[in-house]
Amino acid sequence: MALLFRNALVLPMTDPEEGQPMMANVGIESDRIVMIDAAEERDAECSRTADFVARNRESLVEIDATGKVLMPGLINLHTHVAMTLMRSYADDIPLMIWLGEHIWPFEAKLTVDDIALGAQLGMAEMLEGGTTTFADMYWEQATVARVARRMGIRAVVSPCFVDPRMGGFEKDVTESLAEVCDTVSVRIAPHAPYSCSEENLRRGVEVCRELGLPVHTHLAETDDEIRIVRDKYGVSPIELFDRLGYFDFPTIAAHCVKVTDRDMAILRDKQVTVVHNPQSNMKLSSGIAPVWTMMRSGVNVALGTDGASSNNDLDMWDEMRSAALLQKVSSTDPTVLPAYSALRMATADGARALGREGELGIVAEGALADVILVDLSRPHMQPIHDVVSTLVYCGKSSDVEMVVVGGRVIVRGGRVEGLDYQGLYSSVAKRLEELTRR
Amino acid sequence: MALLFRNALVLPMTDPEEGQPMMANVGIESDRIVMIDAAEERDAECSRTADFVARNRESLVEIDATGKVLMPGLINLHTHVAMTLMRSYADDIPLMIWLGEHIWPFEAKLTVDDIALGAQLGMAEMLEGGTTTFADMYWEQATVARVARRMGIRAVVSPCFVDPRMGGFEKDVTESLAEVCDTVSVRIAPHAPYSCSEENLRRGVEVCRELGLPVHTHLAETDDEIRIVRDKYGVSPIELFDRLGYFDFPTIAAHCVKVTDRDMAILRDKQVTVVHNPQSNMKLSSGIAPVWTMMRSGVNVALGTDGASSNNDLDMWDEMRSAALLQKVSSTDPTVLPAYSALRMATADGARALGREGELGIVAEGALADVILVDLSRPHMQPIHDVVSTLVYCGKSSDVEMVVVGGRVIVRGGRVEGLDYQGLYSSVAKRLEELTRR
Repeated sequence: MALLFRNALVLPMTDPEEGQPMMANVGIESDRIVMIDAAEERDAECSRTADFVARNRESLVEIDATGKVLMPGLINLHTHVAMTLMRSYADDIPLMIWLGEHIWPFEAKLTVDDIALGAQLGMAEMLEGGTTTFADMYWEQATVARVARRMGIRAVVSPCFVDPRMGGFEKDVTESLAEVCDTVSVRIAPHAPYSCSEENLRRGVEVCRELGLPVHTHLAETDDEIRIVRDKYGVSPIELFDRLGYFDFPTIAAHCVKVTDRDMAILRDKQVTVVHNPQSNMKLSSGIAPVWTMMRSGVNVALGTDGASSNNDLDMWDEMRSAALLQKVSSTDPTVLPAYSALRMATADGARALGREGELGIVAEGALADVILVDLSRPHMQPIHDVVSTLVYCGKSSDVEMVVVGGRVIVRGGRVEGLDYQGLYSSVAKRLEELTRR
Repeated sequence: MALLFRNALVLPMTDPEEGQPMMANVGIESDRIVMIDAAEERDAECSRTADFVARNRESLVEIDATGKVLMPGLINLHTHVAMTLMRSYADDIPLMIWLGEHIWPFEAKLTVDDIALGAQLGMAEMLEGGTTTFADMYWEQATVARVARRMGIRAVVSPCFVDPRMGGFEKDVTESLAEVCDTVSVRIAPHAPYSCSEENLRRGVEVCRELGLPVHTHLAETDDEIRIVRDKYGVSPIELFDRLGYFDFPTIAAHCVKVTDRDMAILRDKQVTVVHNPQSNMKLSSGIAPVWTMMRSGVNVALGTDGASSNNDLDMWDEMRSAALLQKVSSTDPTVLPAYSALRMATADGARALGREGELGIVAEGALADVILVDLSRPHMQPIHDVVSTLVYCGKSSDVEMVVVGGRVIVRGGRVEGLDYQGLYSSVAKRLEELTRR
């Protein structure tokens, strides 16, 4: 099948520093963007659009994108997607009580089927909001991968190990996943330096080496973690992971709220991507990551929502806005983390973190066709002085009208096509009633 | 006309500390809520709902609210509504450059018709998002009042005076407005202590006394303001306004980011309502208001978006969430400003600020029928463990399905009934093209 978007405001996100949209027709063949025919470069005598239409006549779907923004799908680089089951389950309480008395006991009761349900709900939410790729970290990642394939969203799954659950590390699963599907990739996920023994952390690095896989972890999230790691190892969490050898593999490190200058130098030199989770860090009172300082030091910083139990949604628009606003207020400088940078964090910089620069997170000829169409016709998006600013400071998940992943239309009219929403909600509610009964 | 909402999840917001919804039928006659027939109190033999239906048979509109939340309309207590014209016009730049080189020169060119256009756009946005009352501060407030009446939204208008524009103080307008309409009220609005001369500030108090009107102002927004006022008067902005006599009249004071213990005592003792504007304070790097400390000290704190040029939307859902998250991260305590408190700020506490406690901002028999119906059927709202938490941490403007102001249905299916959106956007765009041409 081929898709042709006519008269879209195309936001390529290819420039690292700034960019504004251009009016263009965009052609997609199979899973790739094959043509961007910019209005201002168009030659009436020799139309690339006409050629595209002629070439794909038999299977072409045309979409009138007039007045709409066509941009890269968003990349949510840190989730625990099945935790939608615990959305708004235990809020406004201290972290250790939240974990020890609510989240962990609840999680202990979850079955594989529960995780499939929660994952499906989370993916529906992400897709409706324009997220086309997410990096998950949780248990039962084979299940998450299976649901992702069925839903049509691109996924990075990261089977998580935490003491005493190292036995739960799904090595075989990981190996099998790595082979089956080009829309799912796998990472090794030590939960965090404070929640794994030194022995298990070392085994994790061995697994990286053995399987040649990249890493997904939580690092430097709270003051408590810094203290625990310093007491035990005499170094910071980031120094520890560097010393253990994790950073010899491509690593995405969620949070990095508490980082020293020395930590930043390591992150930059080892090309570790920091995943900023502003709303989770705010809600759990973890602190404010020095995102702009890290970016200016040459660290790649991408964006994630964290799980729905500490956010409480998987909304990358909210997250972009919170990231920008939080840096401005904490630095007392309104010029830091401008709108375009926030949008890059959620697109091209996320792709770079996954080693897919030039292929994901941008709209360009040859890139994968993971694109979204954003409506500008609600009052909160009007008037349009600056599209980038409007998207970041005013855009909402509900403005996302169409979502395409790998050339397949997954969301149309803001809804996941073919999904039985009510059936899903009923199944979730029924199961939660059982789980919370006692 | 009478309205009957059947099987709604009614969130009354009447309890100051906590509350959860109850299943009920809600009956509205004329501009008041006249019946809340709770399912669990219902008596099959003698149904209040049946009586209501019988009584209003000739003009009854029934709405099936099953699975939806019926709650008070939101109260946006600080806006410059016409500034939607400058939405995303000049972002990510320092405050004084923003004002001096962009906002003020732009404003200087605005006509009364422009303000009407911007106001209409802002009110459409607010209504779609469930705001039923707003407190504006700007010029040409007679025009804003006129547009508000036409749009059906409840408005508090506050003609603003700033040096050298004291001459522009619309005393006659104010007097006439105060009389004409029960959905519009008027406040005296000295712009801020740093932007009015002492003489003008004193004249403002005289006008308050003469007309018996309450006050709407900006106070203690930035460190610069504190320094300027301290240099000139030897006191804090809040002490100054207290000394001048403003606080002898009911006052809403926007921002209050920089407040001392002494300031807080004054605010509490004089029953001044602080209007917190978290996203504006973040975006302009003004700082983080000590909201929770003020609330615990007995100060009434309500919520506002500020103008669309520093936010950049008029979305009270975003604002509630930002208020809660910002207090948690700044206090390093995740228990502060829990979801219910954030929701109170945007409803009952806003009504209290306007002297309309018990009449607005709640769902109760005898209260004004300013209510909204919130859909829970998008994936980001599922599952429902705690409705209040879900509304505050996951709710979006786009979840608002119906808006009723004073018994009149203004928004249906998320859209302002009878509004020519495209015509409005075209008029705005055409006029902005003229304004920005040179």
